[in-house]
Amino acid sequence: MTETKFPPENNLPAGYEPPRVWTWDAGNGGQFASINRPVAGPTHDKDLPVGEHDLQLYSLATPNGQKVTILLEELLEAGIKAADYDAWLITIGKGEQFGSGFVDVNPNSKIPALLDRKPRDGGEPVRLFESGSILVYLADKFGAFLPKDARARAEVMNWLFWQMGSAPFVGGGFGHFFAYAPVKIQYAIDRYAMEAKRQMDVLNRQLANNEFVAGSDYSIADMAIWPWYGRLALDQSYPDAGTFLATHEYEHVQRWAKQLAARAGLKRGIVVNKASGEPGTFLPERHNAADFDGLTL
Amino acid sequence: MTETKFPPENNLPAGYEPPRVWTWDAGNGGQFASINRPVAGPTHDKDLPVGEHDLQLYSLATPNGQKVTILLEELLEAGIKAADYDAWLITIGKGEQFGSGFVDVNPNSKIPALLDRKPRDGGEPVRLFESGSILVYLADKFGAFLPKDARARAEVMNWLFWQMGSAPFVGGGFGHFFAYAPVKIQYAIDRYAMEAKRQMDVLNRQLANNEFVAGSDYSIADMAIWPWYGRLALDQSYPDAGTFLATHEYEHVQRWAKQLAARAGLKRGIVVNKASGEPGTFLPERHNAADFDGLTL
Repeated sequence: MTETKFPPENNLPAGYEPPRVWTWDAGNGGQFASINRPVAGPTHDKDLPVGEHDLQLYSLATPNGQKVTILLEELLEAGIKAADYDAWLITIGKGEQFGSGFVDVNPNSKIPALLDRKPRDGGEPVRLFESGSILVYLADKFGAFLPKDARARAEVMNWLFWQMGSAPFVGGGFGHFFAYAPVKIQYAIDRYAMEAKRQMDVLNRQLANNEFVAGSDYSIADMAIWPWYGRLALDQSYPDAGTFLATHEYEHVQRWAKQLAARAGLKRGIVVNKASGEPGTFLPERHNAADFDGLTL
Repeated sequence: MTETKFPPENNLPAGYEPPRVWTWDAGNGGQFASINRPVAGPTHDKDLPVGEHDLQLYSLATPNGQKVTILLEELLEAGIKAADYDAWLITIGKGEQFGSGFVDVNPNSKIPALLDRKPRDGGEPVRLFESGSILVYLADKFGAFLPKDARARAEVMNWLFWQMGSAPFVGGGFGHFFAYAPVKIQYAIDRYAMEAKRQMDVLNRQLANNEFVAGSDYSIADMAIWPWYGRLALDQSYPDAGTFLATHEYEHVQRWAKQLAARAGLKRGIVVNKASGEPGTFLPERHNAADFDGLTL
C-alpha cells in the first residue's frame, strides 16, 4: 500500500489498512448502498415506455435531471413547439436505471437519458446521455441558448464544462459526506465544504460582472449551474447546508439564483419528473403542456 | 445538523459533530492543503508569458492537462500545421494558477487553460478553460476528431461529458482517499473504489463492441478518457491502484489503452508540460516540434 507518515491508529476504523486487492462489501455503502454496485450493465429485462413526441426523456428531478427539463420548458416558453416531449419517471431508488431498455440509452445507468426519434438524418433514434451532452444537442438542434458564433459559444461551453467537472465535488462529495454518509468524517466534510465554497466564490465573482453566467445572454450554462449552485444558494439542496456554507454571503449568486427562479420555463422545468412533495407542486410524468394545469409553481 | 441514526462515537474523530457554520482550518487539508482554499480569485499579480504561435497553452501534465496536449500533437501528426502551439508550465504546487494573468484566462484557477490569439472573428484572443471545452473548441476549429454529423457527434459528446462528470470520482475521490489523504478512511476508500470499478466496467463493455470509445473513429472522447482510465488500466496512476482495483480484468480497456499508448501523437502529448521524470523523457515547455528531438518516448 501507499506509504504514509501518518499513524494508522488515526484511521477509520482505527488501525485500518487497505487490503492489497479491494473486495466489495455490499453492507458498507450508506444510504444509497442498494443502488450502488462495482459493476455496470443491466440487472433485468425491461423495455422503456414510448409516447407520442419526438423527444422521449427518462429522468428524475434531481439537479442533473432538472437541467434538461428546464431547457425543454424554456424552449417551449420561447415558442419552439418542436421541443414538446414526453418525460418518463425513472425511480432510481428502485433500480429502474438498471433495466435493459434504459441501459441501451445510457450504458452508465444514470439519469437523465434522452431519445431523439426524429434526428436530422432521418435514421434510427439518436441516444443521448449525460446532462451536458443532452443540453448541447438540444440547444444546437433548436438553435437556442447556445450561440453559433465561436467566441460566445466558447464562453458558454467553458462554464458548462466547469459545472460538469465541479458539481461532483458538491453532490458526490459535500452532499454525500454532509448529509448522507452513515458516519460524520470531519476530514471529508472539511475537504468538500472548502471546495464547495471555493466554487461558489468562482461563480459569485463571475456573476458580479455578468447578468448571466456566460455573459449578457441566458444560456445552457445557466440551466446547468442553477440546479446545483442556485438551489444551494437558496438553501434548497441539503438540510442546513446553506447555513453551514454561509451561502447568503455570495450576493451575486443570490441575485442570479432568484432572478432565474422567477422564470416561467424554469419554474415548470424543476417540477417535471418530481415524484413527491406538497400536493399540487410536482409532476411525476409530463406528456403535454396541459399537465401543468392546476399546479402551484 | 442533519439527524442521523448512527452513533457519533463512530465518527472521525470520535464524537465529532459538524458545527452549524463551517470555518476554515488551513491545517486540515492533506497533501494539497497549501494550494486548496475556500475562496477564488488571484493571490498575486503575474502576467502570463506569450510565445509566437496562435495557441498559447498554460498547463501541467496531469491527466486533465494531457488531454489537450494529446489532441494538439494528434492534430499536428495529422498534418494540421495551424495547430502548432506554445505550452507553458504552470506549477500548481507553487500556486502559479493563482496569478492574475492565469485567473483572467481561467477564473477557476485550474489547468489546462488556453488562449486562441487567432480566433475566426479576428478579434481579441478567445479564452478557454476546462479540458472538455478546450477539446471541443480545438476539434471544431480544425475540423478533426469531432464529427460535424449530429448523430456521430452526439455519441462523442455523450462520452466526453461522461468523462468530465465521472473522473472527479476517480481523481478527487478514489485517488485522493487511496493515495493522498493523511488518514485511511475505509468508508471513503470503499465508496470510491466501487465507483471507479463500476466506471471501468462501463468503459469495458463499450470497448468490447467498439474499437474506440465512441465507435469506429478515434475522437476527442478517447483523448479525454485515456489519461484517466487508460493510465489507470495500465497502472500508471496511483501507486498500487491497478492491483487494488484489479484493472487487469478489464480486458477491452486494456486492449484500447495499449493501442492508444502506441500512437506517436499521444506519446508526444503526454510528456508535454511534464516537470520531472527520468532524464530525456519529459518536456516542461514545448514551443516547436524540434523540442522533442532526442527524447525517449
